[in-house]
Amino acid sequence: MSEVYAARRTRLREHCTAGGSAAALVSRPANVRYLAGTAPHDAVLLLGRSDDQDLLLCTGPAEDRPAQGRVDETLRVRTLTGTAGDPAVTATGLAADRGTEALAVEEHHLTVARHRALSAVAPRLHLTDLGCAVEQLRVVKDEEEISCLRIGAEIADQALGELLESILVGRTERHLALELERRLIDHGADGPAFPTSVGTGPHAGRPGHRPTDRRVEEGDFLSVCLGATYRGYRCEIGRTFVIGTSPADWQIELYDLVFAAQRAGREALAPGAACCDVDRAARQVLDSAGHAEHLPTVTGHGVGLEIAEDPQLTPAAMGKLDACVPVTVEPGVHLPGRGGVRIDDTLVVRPEADGGPELLTITTKELLAL
Amino acid sequence: MSEVYAARRTRLREHCTAGGSAAALVSRPANVRYLAGTAPHDAVLLLGRSDDQDLLLCTGPAEDRPAQGRVDETLRVRTLTGTAGDPAVTATGLAADRGTEALAVEEHHLTVARHRALSAVAPRLHLTDLGCAVEQLRVVKDEEEISCLRIGAEIADQALGELLESILVGRTERHLALELERRLIDHGADGPAFPTSVGTGPHAGRPGHRPTDRRVEEGDFLSVCLGATYRGYRCEIGRTFVIGTSPADWQIELYDLVFAAQRAGREALAPGAACCDVDRAARQVLDSAGHAEHLPTVTGHGVGLEIAEDPQLTPAAMGKLDACVPVTVEPGVHLPGRGGVRIDDTLVVRPEADGGPELLTITTKELLAL
Repeated sequence: MSEVYAARRTRLREHCTAGGSAAALVSRPANVRYLAGTAPHDAVLLLGRSDDQDLLLCTGPAEDRPAQGRVDETLRVRTLTGTAGDPAVTATGLAADRGTEALAVEEHHLTVARHRALSAVAPRLHLTDLGCAVEQLRVVKDEEEISCLRIGAEIADQALGELLESILVGRTERHLALELERRLIDHGADGPAFPTSVGTGPHAGRPGHRPTDRRVEEGDFLSVCLGATYRGYRCEIGRTFVIGTSPADWQIELYDLVFAAQRAGREALAPGAACCDVDRAARQVLDSAGHAEHLPTVTGHGVGLEIAEDPQLTPAAMGKLDACVPVTVEPGVHLPGRGGVRIDDTLVVRPEADGGPELLTITTKELLAL
Repeated sequence: MSEVYAARRTRLREHCTAGGSAAALVSRPANVRYLAGTAPHDAVLLLGRSDDQDLLLCTGPAEDRPAQGRVDETLRVRTLTGTAGDPAVTATGLAADRGTEALAVEEHHLTVARHRALSAVAPRLHLTDLGCAVEQLRVVKDEEEISCLRIGAEIADQALGELLESILVGRTERHLALELERRLIDHGADGPAFPTSVGTGPHAGRPGHRPTDRRVEEGDFLSVCLGATYRGYRCEIGRTFVIGTSPADWQIELYDLVFAAQRAGREALAPGAACCDVDRAARQVLDSAGHAEHLPTVTGHGVGLEIAEDPQLTPAAMGKLDACVPVTVEPGVHLPGRGGVRIDDTLVVRPEADGGPELLTITTKELLAL
C-alpha cells in the first residue's frame, strides 16, 4: 500500500513545483501522516525534487510509531539521536545542503519561534508558505480512507447502542462518557476521536459540552456525542434521548424540529452543492421556528485524520462539495437553562446515481424514551 | 482568591515594562489560565498598562469555561459573538486603538500565519517577543498550587492502589489504562493528566509507551505511568511490578538498580541544586552499570498546569532548582525486546530545614510481585 503515500506526495510535489518551490517541509502531524503513513508525533516530512529525495525525520525511536495505521515502507526515515533537537531544523539544513533555493513550509502550523530557527539554520534558503495545500489534498477521500471511517462509525454505533441498553438514571455525565470511551476501545477503536460529550437536562444539546458530575434524572433530555478513531480516521455521531416513559410536549416539538433541520441538511448533500447552501438548508428550519439565537456557528464539517477538517458548513463558507467528501451534519438547538437537542451524523457525499449521501452512523434517529 | 491572579499579572506587567512593552498578549492556554483563572480554550489575555485595562477575550459562551478551577471575578471578559474570528486579532486591534506602541506576544506559541494576521490588523503596532516570561513565572508554585498537586497525587495513588488489588493476568494494556483513568475520575480528578501508559513484558519501562492489546502474562514486568489533573494541576506517578510469585534474578537486579538511581535523583533535590546535577545523580547510577544507551534524555521535569514544564532535568540543563518547585524524578531502563523498569515520583523541592523534598506520590516503591 506504500504507493498510496507516494502518489499523494507526487500530487503535493506537482503543487509545489507549480508554486515555484522545489522542496516542502510538512510539519503538521495529520499532514505528515497523510503523506507518509503513521509516524511518531514529532516527525516531519521533507519533500524533495523526486520521490527518492523524500525523507521522514523524527527524534523518537522507531518503536514510538503508533501501532495503528499503515507505514510507508518505501519512504526513507532518519531518526535523530539524543538531544538533536527539532527535526524541522535538521530537515531545513538538509534542504539547504542539497542546494534547494526555496522551501515551502506550513506557516499555519509552525510557530514564529520555530520558523525563526529554520531561517537561522539556513539563512540563504528562501522560506515560502505552503499554506493549506496538504489539507486541501485531504478533503476528498479514497475508498480505503472511507472504509476506515465506516468501521469507526460502526464502532461508535455499537458503543452507543450498548449504552442505551443499560440503566441511565442516577449516573453522572462523566461516568457515561467514560463508559462510552471504554466501549469504543472494546470494539476495536484506536481511541475516542475527540472527548466524548454527554449532556443531561439543562446541559443537553450544548455543542462541545464537557461532562460534569450532574446525574441523569427522569424527564431529562440526554444528548451524547462520540466518535471512534480507527486507523487514524475520526468519525462522529450525536444523538439526543429523553429519560422516562413519556417526553413532554416541548421536548417532542423541539426534537421534531431539529430532526427536520438535520434531515434537510443531509438531503442537501450532493457533489457540486455549495457548502453554505447545505448549512442554510439545515439552519433555515431552525431560524424560521424562532431559534436563530440558539444556533451554533457551524452545522457540519469535514472529518478524516482530524475531527474537524475542511469543508466547514457555515453561512460564510465558500466552495462546493465533491463526491467522496465525508462530512458531519449536526444542527442543534440549546435553550439556556432548559437544555436542547442535537442530532449529528457522519455521511459521505455521493452522486445521486450512486444512491446519494452514504450514511455512516446508522443508529436510529427516532426520539427514544429510555 | 482573585487577587492571586491580579498579583501574577502585576509581576508580568513589571517584566513587560522593564522590557519596554506597555502591553502584552498572552495566548498559550496554560499561561492564560495562570494569569486569569480558568477560561475557555481559545481565550487570550490582553495585559494593559494597569490592572483595570486587563481584558480576557474569547469566542465561546461563558458556559464554555471549564467547571474545574477558579475564576478571576475581577477581570473583565469580552466574549466575541458569532463569526468574529480570532480573539488575538481583536485584542491586537484593541491595543492599537489604545495608542499602545509595542505589544509583546508569545512567539513560541503563535503560528507564523496568526502572527501575520495580528500585524495586518495593526500595522503600526510594534510586535515584540514576550518569550517564555509567563512560563518562568509559573516555575515556582504557591502553596495553593502545591495543594492541588498534592490532591492530584493522592488521587493517582488511590487509582493505582485499587488496580493492584485486582486480577491483572490476561488483561490488555489498553484495558488497564482505561480502568486507571476511570478510577482517577471516580476519585475526583478533572481527568487524566496525560494519556495513561501501561506497558507489559517487552513494553515495560518504555517512556511514553502507548498501551496496546498485549495481555499481561506470568513473569512479565508491568510498568504503569499515570497522573491526575486536579483543578488544572497535573501530577505524575510511575511504578513497575512483576507478575507472578517470584521475580527472576535479572528483574530483581534491574529493579534495584533503577530504584537506586531514582533515590539518588530524589536525594539530590534541594533549593540551589543545579538541574544537571540532579540528572547526573540519577543517570550515573545507570551509566556505571552499563546502561548508558538505554536511558531516556530526560530523568525528570517540572509539573503544574502542564505535565512537562520547566525545569528539565537533563545533562544539558542550565539553571538551578528553587524551593516550591514540583518536579518528577523518573529514571528508567528499557532493554529492547526484554522490557524494563521505570520509577517515577512527583516531589516538591523544599529546604533541608523543612524536611527536604516533599514526596507527593506515596505508593510503595518496593518491588511487588502481583
